[in-house]
Amino acid sequence: MRRFISHKTINLISKTTTSTISSSSPDSPSLSPNSPLASLLRFFSTLHPSSMASDYSATPITIDNINPKVLKCEYAVRGEIVSIAQTLQQNLKDNPGSHPFDEILYCNIGNPQSLAQQPITFFREVLALCDHPSILDKSETQGLFSADAIERAFQILEQIPGRATGAYSHSQGIKGLRDTIASGMKARDGFPADPNDLFLTDGASPAVHMMMQLLIRSENDGILCPIPQYPLYSASIALHGGTLVPYYLDEQTGWGLEISELEHQLKTAKSKGIDVRALVVINPGNPTGQVLGEANQREIVEFCKKEGLVLLADEVYQENVYVPDKKFHSFKKISRSMGYGETDISLVSFQSVSKGFYGECGKRGGYMEVTGFSPEVREQIYKLASVNLCSNISGQILASLIMSPPKVGDESYKSFSAEKEAILSSLARRAKTLEDALNSLEGVTCNRAEGAMYLFPCINLPDKAIKAAEEAKTAPDAFYAKHLLNATGIVVVPGSGFRQVPGTWHFRCTILPQEEKIPAIVSRLTEFHKKFMDEFRG
Amino acid sequence: MRRFISHKTINLISKTTTSTISSSSPDSPSLSPNSPLASLLRFFSTLHPSSMASDYSATPITIDNINPKVLKCEYAVRGEIVSIAQTLQQNLKDNPGSHPFDEILYCNIGNPQSLAQQPITFFREVLALCDHPSILDKSETQGLFSADAIERAFQILEQIPGRATGAYSHSQGIKGLRDTIASGMKARDGFPADPNDLFLTDGASPAVHMMMQLLIRSENDGILCPIPQYPLYSASIALHGGTLVPYYLDEQTGWGLEISELEHQLKTAKSKGIDVRALVVINPGNPTGQVLGEANQREIVEFCKKEGLVLLADEVYQENVYVPDKKFHSFKKISRSMGYGETDISLVSFQSVSKGFYGECGKRGGYMEVTGFSPEVREQIYKLASVNLCSNISGQILASLIMSPPKVGDESYKSFSAEKEAILSSLARRAKTLEDALNSLEGVTCNRAEGAMYLFPCINLPDKAIKAAEEAKTAPDAFYAKHLLNATGIVVVPGSGFRQVPGTWHFRCTILPQEEKIPAIVSRLTEFHKKFMDEFRG
Repeated sequence: MRRFISHKTINLISKTTTSTISSSSPDSPSLSPNSPLASLLRFFSTLHPSSMASDYSATPITIDNINPKVLKCEYAVRGEIVSIAQTLQQNLKDNPGSHPFDEILYCNIGNPQSLAQQPITFFREVLALCDHPSILDKSETQGLFSADAIERAFQILEQIPGRATGAYSHSQGIKGLRDTIASGMKARDGFPADPNDLFLTDGASPAVHMMMQLLIRSENDGILCPIPQYPLYSASIALHGGTLVPYYLDEQTGWGLEISELEHQLKTAKSKGIDVRALVVINPGNPTGQVLGEANQREIVEFCKKEGLVLLADEVYQENVYVPDKKFHSFKKISRSMGYGETDISLVSFQSVSKGFYGECGKRGGYMEVTGFSPEVREQIYKLASVNLCSNISGQILASLIMSPPKVGDESYKSFSAEKEAILSSLARRAKTLEDALNSLEGVTCNRAEGAMYLFPCINLPDKAIKAAEEAKTAPDAFYAKHLLNATGIVVVPGSGFRQVPGTWHFRCTILPQEEKIPAIVSRLTEFHKKFMDEFRG
Repeated sequence: MRRFISHKTINLISKTTTSTISSSSPDSPSLSPNSPLASLLRFFSTLHPSSMASDYSATPITIDNINPKVLKCEYAVRGEIVSIAQTLQQNLKDNPGSHPFDEILYCNIGNPQSLAQQPITFFREVLALCDHPSILDKSETQGLFSADAIERAFQILEQIPGRATGAYSHSQGIKGLRDTIASGMKARDGFPADPNDLFLTDGASPAVHMMMQLLIRSENDGILCPIPQYPLYSASIALHGGTLVPYYLDEQTGWGLEISELEHQLKTAKSKGIDVRALVVINPGNPTGQVLGEANQREIVEFCKKEGLVLLADEVYQENVYVPDKKFHSFKKISRSMGYGETDISLVSFQSVSKGFYGECGKRGGYMEVTGFSPEVREQIYKLASVNLCSNISGQILASLIMSPPKVGDESYKSFSAEKEAILSSLARRAKTLEDALNSLEGVTCNRAEGAMYLFPCINLPDKAIKAAEEAKTAPDAFYAKHLLNATGIVVVPGSGFRQVPGTWHFRCTILPQEEKIPAIVSRLTEFHKKFMDEFRG
């Protein structure tokens, strides 16, 4: 089955050459050319001419000989602009007053708690109790924790074999927690979910990598991705050696996803010999913030079914919808409501504890629901999961909590609902304020953030700025973002990091800074933009 | 830089073909062959003959067309035997008394807390307080938690920007925690460690994958691995498309690692055109349990330096040494004590919170120390880390705790030391008892477990058993392991999962079952083995 070197060969070779080969080490006596061993060595070298070469040193590892897929991979969300920001932050710490701002405002990444969003109390109570179950029975605990958090911790511990929160779990995640998540999905969708379809992962990213690893065989395999896209997709496709097949969202129609565009790009890719295997849809959109309409989702499902594409549905922003005219529907719900089941369509949905109103990025919890694959393929996905043993148990617990939060009547329900509502309504207000501010800037147009955590304005940059960027050997939107950072301390990600229609320029800005800081951000941004345009208007 | 499809082309194509292409959907009206659109379509199809093919469905995903690297990858630790065990466990639950044993004893994996090892109290206190910091100032907390755990939680929260344990951290891990780990490494080795060399990961496995991803370009790139090896290495090499270059540990000399064998295998690989890039050393050994001597480690460092190989040192069992005549030395300490610094040798050391006396597998904490690479290569490693944003914060905190446990004078010191000592001394006793028991079996020889958590006995199987295994289309050691499981409920991993000298048969058995269960395990194993040999002795 495997290519073993024969035991006897090993023994023969090592018996005859051991001392000879080690004699080439500087500390050992040298070998006489007439010795029997040296003759034997020459005999072997005629059998395998290159095996006795005197210099068989490995090529030292340099930037020129590492895996080229690693070199090709880009991840702008933590790219150059962020490095500059970190340096500026250190400057501010070492020399307060050295810049025209007193803090760095990280609007580059959906990381709510880094911008002072508080965790949901109930979730943290349960996590703490599961981390240190020996306090569960103590009287002081009643005074420190809510009754339903204590009860929930007991329930969760019952679901964990041996109550061992420090043990590796089943590689798909603890079965009882998967049951809870499946129930939550059923309550959300009105269609059942099978706990055996769930794979719990350290955030959603490893789940995306797992699917790319499964699907991509070579650069001839393509994955349809929205442009603009979340750079995890381009990075993962590059790392696995596949081809990103772009489909462009239509900025004019609020980042519309048109089936004609999917069809066109699929055909174009096919004509180039690309075997397109899957379609990535991010809903609500990242970086674009649009929420797909139900009819549009049905078209997408129909398209994937017709074309035999795996639908990879990034649904990590499912709880981040800010406009009354839009509602999140999972692709699972849509496809099941169309009557499509296991054998009709391969569908993978990604969910994460990092987003929503909880924003527990640092806990690295997430999962994917995998439906519509053969048992043999599913077993391969399980094997991939098993190589890393399991995802972290706190993240697993949190994934179960976000899908089964306190209910009416639970002690924590009121405070939980208040915390949730405060965060979501504030995010909606912040989105609207920033959107309006951006739209009031010269040459800037910004679609509304219907959902997710981002605005992705289009900036119509003056030719002089584009020329200056060229001279500075940087993309024009990166040029703009660097100027913005240096003038205001606001960190955004240039649109080029997400890809965009060539010749257009954007940046992604989160809606996450604390609400009381938004007015200052708006005025700093407005002032900066005016100056920038005055300087480069030409 | 990237291959963008021109904006204008997109618009042209979609304007002319949108309605045409969507008309092929079953719900749309069909296209008249004489319509102007149809003519245009024909015009386009002459330009790109294949682009207008009527059937452009993707190949459905089957076991025959997924990534062959995934198919090739094997991970025996959670393989077939474990699946059978899980089924038996369910049987026992559904029909107690249906098997000749009343519980499944998982000796297949180093997962101490799944076998009732209790977590270290101090570590869990700190984790719970960091999860729910709002209780830190409350009076009840004093009664529930030790004073030094409260103090440590405050210290750790101070090190986390914004005290946000729910935020993504720096992609290498929280700087303050890396500082703590680096101090712990310095205290251990007597040589400084640079916190900027540390990459905190979700357990050690992702760190190993990251290095394989960096180093392996194609199947012509080889990684020297011990045989027997921990199957993470063969799995990761397979997934990244490289070649595992085996070097055999010498079972006769207590799994000795001989430089002559390294040299021989390196030459053999080179002669086959393999570019060997790195050497994996697992110390203490998994599955073999040996602890390398200092002189041997120096030879290994010298070999890597001379041959220009990256030394990948798996040191996750550094706190698991059970014999007075052996001591753990990190390869970093060895190489620095030989006078070799950054520019002399590329050295990566892996550490994990899953092993040691803490065994916090489910927390997925770990790190690697990366030294001796150019800044450009280091930046690529950072980029790989950043694509997944960061490892889980509880795991990061735990990684800092294992490298800076309570010290003399701290309130928890006494209880911490007692917990640690009780676990380690019990593991040593269990290792010895199981080793002796195995050595007393007919045809079984077992090296001592000097360290790690495993015994890896050699079983001299009768020809009749080997024939029976052949007929059952299974490896002889898997045949033995299945019989053992079915007769006793004891789960071990067949040696073939770790690779072994062809024609020899082994199994890996952890030393982790609770000490009070060891006598029963020994008698069940002894009784089973006798019956098995009686049946197959021929």
